Amino acid sequence: MTTISLTTDFGNLNGFVGTLKGVIWNIAPGAQIADITHDIPAQDVRQGAIALWRAAPFFPPGSVHIAVVDPGVGTDRRPIGARFGNQFFIAPDNGLLTPMLEDAEAAGESVQIICLDQSRFWLPSVSRTFHGRDIFAPCGAHLANGVPLSELGTPVTEIVRKPLPKPEQTELGFRAHILLADVFGNLTTDLPASWVRDYEKVTFTLHGKTIEGLTLSYGHKQIGDLVALEDSEGYIEIAVVNGSAKNFLSAQIDDVVEVCLNA
Amino acid sequence: MTTISLTTDFGNLNGFVGTLKGVIWNIAPGAQIADITHDIPAQDVRQGAIALWRAAPFFPPGSVHIAVVDPGVGTDRRPIGARFGNQFFIAPDNGLLTPMLEDAEAAGESVQIICLDQSRFWLPSVSRTFHGRDIFAPCGAHLANGVPLSELGTPVTEIVRKPLPKPEQTELGFRAHILLADVFGNLTTDLPASWVRDYEKVTFTLHGKTIEGLTLSYGHKQIGDLVALEDSEGYIEIAVVNGSAKNFLSAQIDDVVEVCLNA
Amino acid sequence: MTTISLTTDFGNLNGFVGTLKGVIWNIAPGAQIADITHDIPAQDVRQGAIALWRAAPFFPPGSVHIAVVDPGVGTDRRPIGARFGNQFFIAPDNGLLTPMLEDAEAAGESVQIICLDQSRFWLPSVSRTFHGRDIFAPCGAHLANGVPLSELGTPVTEIVRKPLPKPEQTELGFRAHILLADVFGNLTTDLPASWVRDYEKVTFTLHGKTIEGLTLSYGHKQIGDLVALEDSEGYIEIAVVNGSAKNFLSAQIDDVVEVCLNA
Repeated sequence: MTTISLTTDFGNLNGFVGTLKGVIWNIAPGAQIADITHDIPAQDVRQGAIALWRAAPFFPPGSVHIAVVDPGVGTDRRPIGARFGNQFFIAPDNGLLTPMLEDAEAAGESVQIICLDQSRFWLPSVSRTFHGRDIFAPCGAHLANGVPLSELGTPVTEIVRKPLPKPEQTELGFRAHILLADVFGNLTTDLPASWVRDYEKVTFTLHGKTIEGLTLSYGHKQIGDLVALEDSEGYIEIAVVNGSAKNFLSAQIDDVVEVCLNA
Repeated sequence: MTTISLTTDFGNLNGFVGTLKGVIWNIAPGAQIADITHDIPAQDVRQGAIALWRAAPFFPPGSVHIAVVDPGVGTDRRPIGARFGNQFFIAPDNGLLTPMLEDAEAAGESVQIICLDQSRFWLPSVSRTFHGRDIFAPCGAHLANGVPLSELGTPVTEIVRKPLPKPEQTELGFRAHILLADVFGNLTTDLPASWVRDYEKVTFTLHGKTIEGLTLSYGHKQIGDLVALEDSEGYIEIAVVNGSAKNFLSAQIDDVVEVCLNA
Repeated sequence: MTTISLTTDFGNLNGFVGTLKGVIWNIAPGAQIADITHDIPAQDVRQGAIALWRAAPFFPPGSVHIAVVDPGVGTDRRPIGARFGNQFFIAPDNGLLTPMLEDAEAAGESVQIICLDQSRFWLPSVSRTFHGRDIFAPCGAHLANGVPLSELGTPVTEIVRKPLPKPEQTELGFRAHILLADVFGNLTTDLPASWVRDYEKVTFTLHGKTIEGLTLSYGHKQIGDLVALEDSEGYIEIAVVNGSAKNFLSAQIDDVVEVCLNA
């Protein structure tokens, strides 16, 4: 029973996601489908990439991840399929797969990428505006059915890359960035906790507020406290206990967090 | 493995949808269930009909579509079951199935409709306010299990019809209407693209703005441009590239779009 | 094919729920997973308990309900597993399971509770902030796979209880409370309809408005009418026909409803 995941900016208002599932089950009747999220802000390729990047590694080997955040739908941007290690991906070629590709490369895993140019695996009629339904979902379903990636299209050697921000080294430590705000208002940064975890003293400054040291978890401080901690992926997170750091700080994606070590 | 789809105005706040799935799996343990949408505005039968109408044709033959937008729950409005071509539907008799019925009739497909009056297929105890759980979900699950539609109830010859708006012919072309706004703010009209596609010149006027000609897809114009294009279902859609036509025009459902041909 | 339900305050923005499903299918590939709700207000253990309590009884015997509303994640609050009658539950020990436990006790069903302290059933690496992924989902998946509850941890005799409010007897009848507002703005109270159903006269007063008598269902009154009726679970509900009682009354959870009998 192959697992398929879906990551889109379709929302849940209009039935687009249900349509994808109908298409998939027409081709791969036994596939199990998990929604990762459909609430990516419209056309926000980077937030789509981050959501998929954090969820995909927890899926069974051989899972097929279909990601559709696709401002270029109907233009000549390519539809691509990929295998990074033991996970498969289907997406428009617009940077949506960058973090997964970079991780696979960093881990020395095998990488295979194709352009989904074999129209016999698409729906018979392809619209100009809904390739999620007409190309990505059917190709993903055929992959889940056991069609080899190499049959779905022609190999390509490079795809569009949109790397996530990375912390910069500063005189006193690092300049990190807010990568995403979660539903609780917790602010995930691009700073690996392992870079600061072993320092005796570390402070985080953003929006004029300074946080001293790391806390273990939310429940180790008082309700309302602004804290820094290691998130579930090993990155530094800024949070307000039982509250929203995003609202408290009026923080935005890409805001800078100044990190001082032993100072 | 039979596929069931769910279309409701239940939202996802209260667990109503999860309850439907529990009921279904109690009766049809192997059924695969896809949410089409649960975000239909409360009691908005027409938006429910449109969402289902656009998604259902993409489901496997034999799928069972359970639709519950049901302002008349607990009154004498009938619960109905239907087969239109090779797809099954379960819904209150309030117009929710009209577009699918009309399409089946137009295509000359066979149509079978019953009143779900066989209480042995309902939950043992039926509430006054949650027939989705007590009648529609269990009947849909029995259908998915292979119980013939004819056993679930008594044949009926006509059901409530609430046809969608249709474009009117005008001196210069057509008067079309906004049928729905999607999550991106794209405005779907009731005008088939095939009615205007072959004219040398066509303009669309709504809210004092005029759009000249059709564009192929969003990515063929500049960000922020107001465009008209053929949507994924073959209807004319009004959109703002990477923006929201709904917000830009303050457009509403049923707003008029004047269409001029060769003028 | 075992059924697993998920009830959380994770929202659907960030892919946390998709991650849980990936973890579950890694361990229990055939499990069918239903979302009850992920829109519990952040850290609102009571609303989580209510949503699960109303949905769980409709699931097949042997279902595993994973509930994660967990303000104490990463502290020493215990992760627990339980069997109440023929349904299994996995949750933090913070009161989330109270209504289900009380119902099982009231019905004289067998009850088994353990602390999930057998780390071989967790993910190999456990974070401080996402035990839903690292402990609750894997333990639930092992349970769905047939691992006995007794292997997942050590028996415990008592868990944290946070009972729901109950109506108080007054001179004239009862003082009931608003338990929850559903997506339509209907207000569910803690008053069993059976306590007032057989009285000749009953009035409900809240926010200065008085409702006389019970109505059968929404469609039996006029649009806009404020009504009281028996909800789908057998409790008294305050509603506005095709409208929102919550908005009309500016009602809040825990607001008092004065109930007068035969007066």
